[in-house]
Amino acid sequence: MDFCREVLEEVKAGRLGVEEAARKLRAEPFADIGVAKVDLHRKLRKGAQEVIYGAGKTAGQIAAILKAMRECQALPVLVTRLDRDKAAEVQQAVPEFCYHQEGQVGILGEMPVPDGQGKILVLTAGTSDMPVAEEAALTAEFLGNEVVRCYDAGVAGLHRLLAHLDEILEARVIIAIAGMEGALPSVVGGLASVPVLAVPTSVGYGASFGGLSALLSMLNSCASGVSVVNIDNGFGAAFQASLINHL
Amino acid sequence: MDFCREVLEEVKAGRLGVEEAARKLRAEPFADIGVAKVDLHRKLRKGAQEVIYGAGKTAGQIAAILKAMRECQALPVLVTRLDRDKAAEVQQAVPEFCYHQEGQVGILGEMPVPDGQGKILVLTAGTSDMPVAEEAALTAEFLGNEVVRCYDAGVAGLHRLLAHLDEILEARVIIAIAGMEGALPSVVGGLASVPVLAVPTSVGYGASFGGLSALLSMLNSCASGVSVVNIDNGFGAAFQASLINHL
Amino acid sequence: MDFCREVLEEVKAGRLGVEEAARKLRAEPFADIGVAKVDLHRKLRKGAQEVIYGAGKTAGQIAAILKAMRECQALPVLVTRLDRDKAAEVQQAVPEFCYHQEGQVGILGEMPVPDGQGKILVLTAGTSDMPVAEEAALTAEFLGNEVVRCYDAGVAGLHRLLAHLDEILEARVIIAIAGMEGALPSVVGGLASVPVLAVPTSVGYGASFGGLSALLSMLNSCASGVSVVNIDNGFGAAFQASLINHL
Amino acid sequence: MDFCREVLEEVKAGRLGVEEAARKLRAEPFADIGVAKVDLHRKLRKGAQEVIYGAGKTAGQIAAILKAMRECQALPVLVTRLDRDKAAEVQQAVPEFCYHQEGQVGILGEMPVPDGQGKILVLTAGTSDMPVAEEAALTAEFLGNEVVRCYDAGVAGLHRLLAHLDEILEARVIIAIAGMEGALPSVVGGLASVPVLAVPTSVGYGASFGGLSALLSMLNSCASGVSVVNIDNGFGAAFQASLINHL
Amino acid sequence: MDFCREVLEEVKAGRLGVEEAARKLRAEPFADIGVAKVDLHRKLRKGAQEVIYGAGKTAGQIAAILKAMRECQALPVLVTRLDRDKAAEVQQAVPEFCYHQEGQVGILGEMPVPDGQGKILVLTAGTSDMPVAEEAALTAEFLGNEVVRCYDAGVAGLHRLLAHLDEILEARVIIAIAGMEGALPSVVGGLASVPVLAVPTSVGYGASFGGLSALLSMLNSCASGVSVVNIDNGFGAAFQASLINHL
Amino acid sequence: MDFCREVLEEVKAGRLGVEEAARKLRAEPFADIGVAKVDLHRKLRKGAQEVIYGAGKTAGQIAAILKAMRECQALPVLVTRLDRDKAAEVQQAVPEFCYHQEGQVGILGEMPVPDGQGKILVLTAGTSDMPVAEEAALTAEFLGNEVVRCYDAGVAGLHRLLAHLDEILEARVIIAIAGMEGALPSVVGGLASVPVLAVPTSVGYGASFGGLSALLSMLNSCASGVSVVNIDNGFGAAFQASLINHL
Amino acid sequence: MDFCREVLEEVKAGRLGVEEAARKLRAEPFADIGVAKVDLHRKLRKGAQEVIYGAGKTAGQIAAILKAMRECQALPVLVTRLDRDKAAEVQQAVPEFCYHQEGQVGILGEMPVPDGQGKILVLTAGTSDMPVAEEAALTAEFLGNEVVRCYDAGVAGLHRLLAHLDEILEARVIIAIAGMEGALPSVVGGLASVPVLAVPTSVGYGASFGGLSALLSMLNSCASGVSVVNIDNGFGAAFQASLINHL
Amino acid sequence: MDFCREVLEEVKAGRLGVEEAARKLRAEPFADIGVAKVDLHRKLRKGAQEVIYGAGKTAGQIAAILKAMRECQALPVLVTRLDRDKAAEVQQAVPEFCYHQEGQVGILGEMPVPDGQGKILVLTAGTSDMPVAEEAALTAEFLGNEVVRCYDAGVAGLHRLLAHLDEILEARVIIAIAGMEGALPSVVGGLASVPVLAVPTSVGYGASFGGLSALLSMLNSCASGVSVVNIDNGFGAAFQASLINHL
Repeated sequence: MDFCREVLEEVKAGRLGVEEAARKLRAEPFADIGVAKVDLHRKLRKGAQEVIYGAGKTAGQIAAILKAMRECQALPVLVTRLDRDKAAEVQQAVPEFCYHQEGQVGILGEMPVPDGQGKILVLTAGTSDMPVAEEAALTAEFLGNEVVRCYDAGVAGLHRLLAHLDEILEARVIIAIAGMEGALPSVVGGLASVPVLAVPTSVGYGASFGGLSALLSMLNSCASGVSVVNIDNGFGAAFQASLINHL
Repeated sequence: MDFCREVLEEVKAGRLGVEEAARKLRAEPFADIGVAKVDLHRKLRKGAQEVIYGAGKTAGQIAAILKAMRECQALPVLVTRLDRDKAAEVQQAVPEFCYHQEGQVGILGEMPVPDGQGKILVLTAGTSDMPVAEEAALTAEFLGNEVVRCYDAGVAGLHRLLAHLDEILEARVIIAIAGMEGALPSVVGGLASVPVLAVPTSVGYGASFGGLSALLSMLNSCASGVSVVNIDNGFGAAFQASLINHL
Repeated sequence: MDFCREVLEEVKAGRLGVEEAARKLRAEPFADIGVAKVDLHRKLRKGAQEVIYGAGKTAGQIAAILKAMRECQALPVLVTRLDRDKAAEVQQAVPEFCYHQEGQVGILGEMPVPDGQGKILVLTAGTSDMPVAEEAALTAEFLGNEVVRCYDAGVAGLHRLLAHLDEILEARVIIAIAGMEGALPSVVGGLASVPVLAVPTSVGYGASFGGLSALLSMLNSCASGVSVVNIDNGFGAAFQASLINHL
Repeated sequence: MDFCREVLEEVKAGRLGVEEAARKLRAEPFADIGVAKVDLHRKLRKGAQEVIYGAGKTAGQIAAILKAMRECQALPVLVTRLDRDKAAEVQQAVPEFCYHQEGQVGILGEMPVPDGQGKILVLTAGTSDMPVAEEAALTAEFLGNEVVRCYDAGVAGLHRLLAHLDEILEARVIIAIAGMEGALPSVVGGLASVPVLAVPTSVGYGASFGGLSALLSMLNSCASGVSVVNIDNGFGAAFQASLINHL
Repeated sequence: MDFCREVLEEVKAGRLGVEEAARKLRAEPFADIGVAKVDLHRKLRKGAQEVIYGAGKTAGQIAAILKAMRECQALPVLVTRLDRDKAAEVQQAVPEFCYHQEGQVGILGEMPVPDGQGKILVLTAGTSDMPVAEEAALTAEFLGNEVVRCYDAGVAGLHRLLAHLDEILEARVIIAIAGMEGALPSVVGGLASVPVLAVPTSVGYGASFGGLSALLSMLNSCASGVSVVNIDNGFGAAFQASLINHL
Repeated sequence: MDFCREVLEEVKAGRLGVEEAARKLRAEPFADIGVAKVDLHRKLRKGAQEVIYGAGKTAGQIAAILKAMRECQALPVLVTRLDRDKAAEVQQAVPEFCYHQEGQVGILGEMPVPDGQGKILVLTAGTSDMPVAEEAALTAEFLGNEVVRCYDAGVAGLHRLLAHLDEILEARVIIAIAGMEGALPSVVGGLASVPVLAVPTSVGYGASFGGLSALLSMLNSCASGVSVVNIDNGFGAAFQASLINHL
Repeated sequence: MDFCREVLEEVKAGRLGVEEAARKLRAEPFADIGVAKVDLHRKLRKGAQEVIYGAGKTAGQIAAILKAMRECQALPVLVTRLDRDKAAEVQQAVPEFCYHQEGQVGILGEMPVPDGQGKILVLTAGTSDMPVAEEAALTAEFLGNEVVRCYDAGVAGLHRLLAHLDEILEARVIIAIAGMEGALPSVVGGLASVPVLAVPTSVGYGASFGGLSALLSMLNSCASGVSVVNIDNGFGAAFQASLINHL
Repeated sequence: MDFCREVLEEVKAGRLGVEEAARKLRAEPFADIGVAKVDLHRKLRKGAQEVIYGAGKTAGQIAAILKAMRECQALPVLVTRLDRDKAAEVQQAVPEFCYHQEGQVGILGEMPVPDGQGKILVLTAGTSDMPVAEEAALTAEFLGNEVVRCYDAGVAGLHRLLAHLDEILEARVIIAIAGMEGALPSVVGGLASVPVLAVPTSVGYGASFGGLSALLSMLNSCASGVSVVNIDNGFGAAFQASLINHL
């Protein structure tokens, strides 16, 4: 938004007309490529690479966005919520697009060298939570973080959780992922002294109500230092974890 | 229900007419005292003392029931969900009625000598869960069980829970009581090898939705050996724990 | 957890270094086979055979776990929530794996000889509840219990229910399974004097809301001695029934 | 609505102008007394006495309506959902207004002589359901029906219910009232061969969610011949029962 | 249940032993054909033909039940919730089984001659509600009623509804079926002076939440004389309508 | 409804008999073509072209309606909620039927010349909301409005929204469409001084609960001048926008 | 927001420094009076008088705001959701503040002369909806509209509704207010050809769930031209009605 | 938990017996004062001062805890959710206890000197959110942070929000607090490049459902970098913000 102040300065200096300034304020920061307005300045303004939410877009739309960003040298780009078939279609159009099936994400361009302050620990209660965990882990790596993965550390077997005590105590941020009763973040939050980002998953059946049970558990956590993102939102947790890790 | 077969035998033997038998099948096992049908045979048939649910009844109705049961020598009687003011009113009419404010229950008659197989452990996550815990503990004692109380053993401080490891390992049945995120039964269920009866409480605010969060957590527990009763239903958990402890 | 004390003893006796003890406390009790940490000591610690929740795992993952457990002589193993196609795939890799389609479970190894105190009665309200009932019945048998099955005994035809009165009165634990209005456990709870474990099922339509109606009914049961597990959770009810039956 | 056709006839015969007819169609059938449009023709058109829903009205408004109807000789009038204090205020203004506290209703005018085809049975699961039951019973009597009351016949003690078998088999319509798990109508519906009108009540706590549990149970009843009205709506059940009883 | 008294009489007369009587009370009234207990005496006891709920049963199970009932001369039989493919399979085994696709029901045996007191009007708000309406209409005809069908009479076009005023005023019972906002029963209930049975349907999208919106509307109807059955439960409404029509 | 008064005038003038008038009031305004009552007078009475809700109808039914309306010269007709396959089938029978896949709508007849007072702005938060937006935009054009489309203007990038400030300030009515957190109408409502019609969409996952989150957001908007239609109901918003734009 | 462009012009012309412009863009349009930022320019920018939401503010805070606005000559001001006691306190400090108890609103300053295009009709289903209706009517008058009130016109008595047909046909905008089943807007929407703004109210009990039933009904209205505001939000409906009436 | 390793070292060195070690692991870190186990080592282990949740405790219990902690020199202590009356009672017993009514918190001991990395911005949408905001701000100050407060910056008046752009851009962590539609965090998340902790509040009425609407909005935020805590949980947000600010 200093961009806003810059434009005002330009106007004052007479280097920019008012009409042009108004236009600039609106049209500049992104390229309209038809299906979406790609935000080319986002990296500078927001401190993050561009991420495309793949679920509501066709393979054709995704490929078009990827090409536009490659032309603008706005790489790397991450595409989330991308199923296998759509990814294959995108790869037809953009062969160097790299797909990670376990996390349902694809990346165009080089993974950055980690430049965060510490490590992000991605912890899950069960193996069924792995797709969400991989979305989180790959997103965090894409955003320049070193990631440690510990899956299947549910609270019903404390041995399994305590086996990861070193990793818990060494992390700078913890992403705790669980479905069903969603108790993992509460127990981890009691052990750790760093921020815990809780991700409820839709793993479960019956009264899990698509992740609602885990979501409510996490929001009501008796442990301090726990905040929550949407059900299955591995990306969201990773994004905030990365912000924290880069402070 | 062998009562049912007994009646048939009586009919066959000619000791009972058909009309009378039909009447007997319907009218016998309880005394109609106007406001409620007091089940005087319940103790024999069900293996349990009579319990009066006090919430929907006036002090006058409760006193009338207590007197009727005292006359029938159907003591002791437990009255649950009884607030302080109503209890005082009942005591006006039935002075030897004994009220326990912390668990909102009253008892008329002697507490029985414990005759269960082992101990029932009543465990809570926080001190705010104490009213429900006391309802459970007093009910269990009323039903003839030895009770061990460990309150304030929440999962966010594992030290607190592990401090009760001996009691957990020695109990024959565990009643695990928690509000908020309701994770206690899951963690306890992972440590113990006996039945865990989970009681969600309405302790909490916001997204605890009156105990719904804890209830869903407990129903979705990843630990085996956990079953659940209604929100704040300390009585129900104690009743089943007593059944198990007397098998 | 006496395991915990054992380790401390070893340390004190000088037979174990501190670092090694810490590692032992974490790494010992299960074998990490990549996709999951198989808990080989579970049988001893928890008093139960290992059970694999099949829903979130691929056939390949399940086969790998089965093989690992066979190698460690940790049989028998039960796999729940396993559909027909996945079971067939597992059988390709592990031919002696035995699949029971009606209950959607598979078993590797011998069914144990029943060693419980009494019989577990599995009772359903309708024939549509049979898949959940079979999951419960087969799990209970797998855990060493004698099981009696009475299906289609709904409360709208009391004749049908009363026809099973002998079985109800002879059981040591009752698993009462119902969808729709979920009234069966309340009526059975009024007849029996043993613990009733209620299992709501997702059988129904419209305002059954995927089993929510039956779940709420059971949680609000006016009968004492009823506790509840998750919707369609035949396994969970059987596990706790077995714990009770082995006390 | 033949009223509508009558007006058309009047117009054709030239006895009524068009403008006047239009006005007549709109203005005639009720007297506007300021706070409400009292429907003086309702008895003829709908086959029922006027009933005032007292909850949203002040004592002053109720008294005004009662006076207007007395003047029009439109008695008797029933006022429902009327608490004790408001009733006392109304009685100040209309001394012959008769209040029944247990059902929270008041009546101005004579109770009619029963003229229905048979008896309406009002059955409740517990004594706590009595206020709703009395609203139903008094309404049914107000609408000209003979009413039989059987309260406290819950399904957890089948003896209690079966004791009322005669009344169940003799009724022409049954109003079955229950809170908590709401199983009564399902069991009664299996015994009776007449219409069962189910009334869920807000009796209960925790997961009864203000009557939602009982409501869902009743909507999902496995018994045929059961239909449901709103939570605590004793009036509504009685109104329909009376319609059926007067067919 | 006079059956019960009959058995007692037989015992008294010495014509029946006690053991035999007990067995009789349990085993007689239905034939156990493996998958279900077919209630052969139901017609006598309940005043209704047998109805099979087809949704949870396989074609094979349904065919077996139909054959058993044909052998016992317990026809006609109605099978509800039967999709086209399953019906075709049943017809392979029982060729004279007659399928009505629009209402998803099949019938084995002759439709009875109507013997009710009056006509049942089946009214829908829109054409999308037709499958539920046909389930209701065919069920009512199967139970011996004359049925009048008026579909597409929604409240947003009062002309359409008023066009059916004659049918509304002539019916003895009205089944009012609507999805979306579910207002039809309220408006019809204001016009008619006979019982209105309201059936919410799952027609709609978004905030109709699978019929919840229509269900709540109908339960809260400001019109008197309206009661409600489960979402899409055309059968249930028809069953009660038939009971009322045969009083 | 002046139609109603017209009929009365005809009766008074003796040009119409009473019976005939009654029939006319009911039967005239629509042609019953079997599956639905097509409202041929609707355009005059309601000020709008006929719209067919395609979701609950078969291709055959839709084609029949279209043909009937073409014969009555009641064109143009809009069919909403029409998927690609059904549209193709309709086009087999009615080749000049024009299908717009992006908005899932089809039109028979000419689009009218815009005759509204101003422009309707259709604004979406993201590209995934486009199907709902196109349903709205095409409906508004069908109803005679000039439409401006601005898609992908979400609140998380204020630049994108502010880029459309001119269009926002120039519109006579704004349709603001958003899924997920549904904040767009609140922000737009703060900028504009014209009516904002908010359309929640089912775009999102997890705690969006099928559009519930966006719906609640919009209902609770802190901005004045915002009203809401059903989830995904682009048609409904456009219809009201058109009413406003034609005042 | 032309304010925004104005500032840019000032900068270009050299009449305003950049820092000052930035400050101006932020600080000008409202006066910070401690408890709230009163938006003094709002009337110009938004085309509406200032409205204070009284519910979350103390009498002292409200009085302070009123005084500040009176000093700035920003009258009239409307205060909504103001109970009787708080209003009396405000009047102590600002005696000329005028309170309307029936609508729970207060006004400081003169009511404006109506300057809208037509009349706004405020219609309710029952007398219990009057408080919400008065909030709507008084707000609309405050915003410069002529208002017609028709209360108690519920759909269960179509006579009552049709009696107001003239007012319905003459209104430019209709605010239709109903609790319970919320059917009024659907029926009115079928009669009128102007925008209908639906206001669900919390009037009702049981399954009305605090207005949820009416809200869902209105969102699912089968009538076109209906949009919805929050439960009990008479103010919101009136605000949008006024916007429409002033177009 | 290095405490755990320390104990092991002590055992190995022979300075501690096994039994004693086991006892130490359980009993040491907190002092049992009857009503609660006060965690005296918490500050070291968790990096935070002790906080007492006041809602479920009596004034007497709180005073007892405060005295115990003062004796152990474990000050300062924060007590949250403490209403005015209870605070006054506590102050009777502990006069130097300092109460802040606006945030419903009390503190015993000195506020620490801020030692965080940057500033925490506490931002609210409206003045009604102030109690939650003050709970957050005072908690953050108690935990050693510099806090900036900007209240009443709702999204419906972007001017108000943009006026705080400097504070938004300068903060290290942002706590965004809003009720009703809860859009504030989404808009702020689009402007800022630091973690945003969103706090839904129960401010609102009707379809805000006690904060549910705001909660869902925030969980579904289209802005990246936003995580959420429980409704009204100012403390929780502040705790995590402090953790982040002290990394």
